[in-house]
Amino acid sequence: MKRAAVLGAGSWGTTFAKVLADAGCDVALHARRPELVQAITDSGENSDYLPGIRLPSAVRATADAAEALADADVVVLAVPSQSLRENLTAWSPLLPADATLLSLMKGIELGTTKRMSQVICEVTGAGPDRVAALSGPNLAREIAEEQPAATVIACTDADRAAALQVACHTRYFRPYTNADLVGCELGGAVKNVIALACGIAEGLGFGDNTRASLITRGLAETARLGLALGAELTTFAGLAGLGDLVATCSSPLSRNRTFGEKLGRGMSVEQVQESTRQTAEGVKSCRSVLDLARAHGVDVPITEAVVRVCHEGEAPARMVKEIMSREAKPE
Amino acid sequence: MKRAAVLGAGSWGTTFAKVLADAGCDVALHARRPELVQAITDSGENSDYLPGIRLPSAVRATADAAEALADADVVVLAVPSQSLRENLTAWSPLLPADATLLSLMKGIELGTTKRMSQVICEVTGAGPDRVAALSGPNLAREIAEEQPAATVIACTDADRAAALQVACHTRYFRPYTNADLVGCELGGAVKNVIALACGIAEGLGFGDNTRASLITRGLAETARLGLALGAELTTFAGLAGLGDLVATCSSPLSRNRTFGEKLGRGMSVEQVQESTRQTAEGVKSCRSVLDLARAHGVDVPITEAVVRVCHEGEAPARMVKEIMSREAKPE
Repeated sequence: MKRAAVLGAGSWGTTFAKVLADAGCDVALHARRPELVQAITDSGENSDYLPGIRLPSAVRATADAAEALADADVVVLAVPSQSLRENLTAWSPLLPADATLLSLMKGIELGTTKRMSQVICEVTGAGPDRVAALSGPNLAREIAEEQPAATVIACTDADRAAALQVACHTRYFRPYTNADLVGCELGGAVKNVIALACGIAEGLGFGDNTRASLITRGLAETARLGLALGAELTTFAGLAGLGDLVATCSSPLSRNRTFGEKLGRGMSVEQVQESTRQTAEGVKSCRSVLDLARAHGVDVPITEAVVRVCHEGEAPARMVKEIMSREAKPE
Repeated sequence: MKRAAVLGAGSWGTTFAKVLADAGCDVALHARRPELVQAITDSGENSDYLPGIRLPSAVRATADAAEALADADVVVLAVPSQSLRENLTAWSPLLPADATLLSLMKGIELGTTKRMSQVICEVTGAGPDRVAALSGPNLAREIAEEQPAATVIACTDADRAAALQVACHTRYFRPYTNADLVGCELGGAVKNVIALACGIAEGLGFGDNTRASLITRGLAETARLGLALGAELTTFAGLAGLGDLVATCSSPLSRNRTFGEKLGRGMSVEQVQESTRQTAEGVKSCRSVLDLARAHGVDVPITEAVVRVCHEGEAPARMVKEIMSREAKPE
């Protein structure tokens, strides 16, 4: 895999373009807005989403999706989860026939409750063996700064997983393979919801005991849902489960946690959305995660509480009290 | 259990004395130093270890262990792990015959590699059913401030566990029972070692991705060791495993994490010890955890690395590099 197209030039897409280039790939980084493409081309950095990070010369920005996709061995999808279907419908005719389709996205589609890899298969007609997901404790900014990090590449086709592993392995970024695509995708999607809950608690003034309890119970509810969907329990104890959850729930760099913090401080969802430019996936996907859980008869009390706060007007203080008072049943 | 003796007036012992009093117990809080006892009696707070926290009137400080222990239904042990045997040898003749002995300590005895409950049984001759341990995401300061927290009380005797649960259940402190004493004690002991590793990484300038990876791999090595000792895997996924680990590794209030941070910044173990008054259990217990793991043929790479840094002069920077490069094998 020498030629990569990264579709979506947000902070994670741009960071992963750098990782691929540092690992030896030629990378086309596609952004929709021509002015962003121009700025990246002129300055060698994406100052909108990753200010201060110099991109390697092997990363070429383009607003032309067809040009980005021509001859790509791997197509990396890094758009907001809820816009994947629409974007991919436009890109689908341009995809090289055997390219591996790698999802960096962490969400569950609203309405259909489909994981991103399912949406990819459905829209493109690609077989499940061609689709992979990457997930782990991977705060974009830290990786862009070349701090050491590990990640998981999940694909049911072991050969493609191994090829992807080589394509993005650098001195500072270590990918491990895993056959459990369902578990990796679910861990990534639900952690955004749990991070919102942690942020809300933090915004209300609760400390590390509360956050640790939310993380513990949040991982338990993720694992319960995963088991119902056929995922492996060990995935949730690993980097794409616990690792990603802890990083996202702890970091000031996490937009879901930060979004929650503002809710906890008393802002409304609309006010927070106006004040931030980036998307907090968890605000949308909490509803699809809850729908998915209900469809499989799984109890997800933290996700339910986040839905109530984000979409049904429940006061954050009441939410945390409820969670902490029902917390730890399974012990 | 209406009468409680808390032996050890550090921050956690003092906080737990307050919890017991708030739950309705009469509490004798024993400190060795008469001047600390006098200060607590005069001011109603333990300004050495818990400044600014008003203690309930049902907490009575005493330097006289015999007086503290007279008629106690529950004896709470809250001294540094490595001094338990010596202290308990002196207190043993004073213990009421059927009192429940509750350990708040988190360590493994050097030399013997015994858990605290094992030391208690050995020194006092009490049957294992009389001994319990309490563990969870319980940063003392936050609980003293009455922030909501949950904990686990582990005891093989379900009736004693239930009585303890009632004895310390307050509006802000929710105890859950668990029969897995081994798992709860081990989770508490190893987390101090992992927190040291997280602190070292932070002191070196590594961010949340690295910390999340250390927590993930640290919990995996704790669980491997626990399984070898007969613990239940589910305990490590719960509040006394993951919960306590995350709280300790994240909080600026954790003395083990803070101790590690100073090591990571370049201070020696001796320099850090001189600059702090409180004990970092992990510095001592890393060696006993490693001995225990070796005796059971369990691989504990993070613990090994902490021992090398704390006791064999290895440079912290090398340690983190080694852990991050071998990290994630099990995926």
